[in-house]
Amino acid sequence: MTAQTSFPDFAPALRAELIATAQAAADAARQVTLGYFRGAQLGTESKMAAGFDPVTLADRGAEQAMRAVIAARRPEDGILGEEFGPKEGRTGLTWVLDPIDGTRGFISGTPTWGVLVALRGPEGALLGVIDQPYIGERFLGGFGLARLDGPHGSRPLRVRTGVGLDEAVIFTTFPEVGSPAEGRAFHDLARRCRLTRYGMDCYAYALLAAGQIDLVVEAGLQSYDILAPLAVIEAAGGIVTDWRGGPAHDGGRVIAAASPELHAAALEILSLA
Amino acid sequence: MTAQTSFPDFAPALRAELIATAQAAADAARQVTLGYFRGAQLGTESKMAAGFDPVTLADRGAEQAMRAVIAARRPEDGILGEEFGPKEGRTGLTWVLDPIDGTRGFISGTPTWGVLVALRGPEGALLGVIDQPYIGERFLGGFGLARLDGPHGSRPLRVRTGVGLDEAVIFTTFPEVGSPAEGRAFHDLARRCRLTRYGMDCYAYALLAAGQIDLVVEAGLQSYDILAPLAVIEAAGGIVTDWRGGPAHDGGRVIAAASPELHAAALEILSLA
Repeated sequence: MTAQTSFPDFAPALRAELIATAQAAADAARQVTLGYFRGAQLGTESKMAAGFDPVTLADRGAEQAMRAVIAARRPEDGILGEEFGPKEGRTGLTWVLDPIDGTRGFISGTPTWGVLVALRGPEGALLGVIDQPYIGERFLGGFGLARLDGPHGSRPLRVRTGVGLDEAVIFTTFPEVGSPAEGRAFHDLARRCRLTRYGMDCYAYALLAAGQIDLVVEAGLQSYDILAPLAVIEAAGGIVTDWRGGPAHDGGRVIAAASPELHAAALEILSLA
Repeated sequence: MTAQTSFPDFAPALRAELIATAQAAADAARQVTLGYFRGAQLGTESKMAAGFDPVTLADRGAEQAMRAVIAARRPEDGILGEEFGPKEGRTGLTWVLDPIDGTRGFISGTPTWGVLVALRGPEGALLGVIDQPYIGERFLGGFGLARLDGPHGSRPLRVRTGVGLDEAVIFTTFPEVGSPAEGRAFHDLARRCRLTRYGMDCYAYALLAAGQIDLVVEAGLQSYDILAPLAVIEAAGGIVTDWRGGPAHDGGRVIAAASPELHAAALEILSLA
């Protein structure tokens, strides 16, 4: 909800510049990751023999490409990336980058991984991009925008409302969901929902922002895993907190909910863990 | 393996006609399903109130569209569809149709469901198409062809080989995998693999044919769920059987494996169930 309270402080030209920078960073990462995804280097006999790990190459290459774009356009901003650590800034703005969220999906060839680009201000996430390069889908939220650009055109992102817990569709990436106690809490919640699905990585958050699903619950996240999804979901009208209702921008245990009612219902069960 | 033994019986012009019919059927289903996928009708408050189920409408509409294409081009062939049952034919050839394989993925907005079109001859599957309309990806195998056409161009489909069980990536759709005994057998196998992933519906078989993953194991399948994946995987050099090594074209418990070695290793564990 910090996005809503903070963006009036930014002049329209600055907002446009920041959105364009996020888009350019995601474009650069898209090009690099597509060069490796399902590539000849991946999943072949020679992979181990050649002594390199193509996922790591894609991850590092995509982060370097995004850092170069940001350094050229916004040299005074900070950067925090999964692969290369923090670069201090002087503007109070930090770009938080996860070049490949969902490396296991990437390795397996499923188009459910994503490039995550977030902009963090002093009060939290201001802007987020979830990009799926293979499908060519980009979910963007912040500074008053909430939009999907994809292979079938553009549409606004808006969570769905009026769905009760017993009608809800819930996602998490792995059935184990963190520690045994966290896993039990997740499954206590999931049993009360209509449908539980696995294996979508960051794509689940994108589907929640797009009004397709109702809850995403995970544990053991890093800040760079959640900041971009958080910004996109808040921009689309949803709620993202930790399992006790506190801020989620540092990662850890996360609930993303399409409505306050579902958030409260999920929190009631998960806060026991 | 029936595809390999049977296709020399078909003249090139007939093969081309059958492939073109499969493509046209998949095109027709693509158009119908995309009209409903992530549509305004899906996942809104009014869904139940309006008294119709958009997945069922998409499913039935897509099958009717495919039946119309096949009836126009190949009026003497039989048709067996998930939604409308069997139509007897006089050629010994039957089109087996699953308009939306993975309705739970469809409902959730994940692009992992597919349109399945298979052609069955007296000895088994001759031709199969796995189509993902949203991504615009089509995996086709049979009559000597094994090809992916997608948003980034076309490429041959070929399973990967030389991967040991401890290096294998295994997929299934639900962690429960059929009965409790079947679930235990699956997890006994999965524990010996490098990576287990869930939630991909028919897309997992497509990834196996494309050389991205090594094993897909499921239970409780129908004939129309497996015939098209079976044809695509066999055309790409893989193996599909039931859990005892017998034919899989009637559905039930299915193993799809990228190599004879992985198939034997999986069979050894699963045949105990």
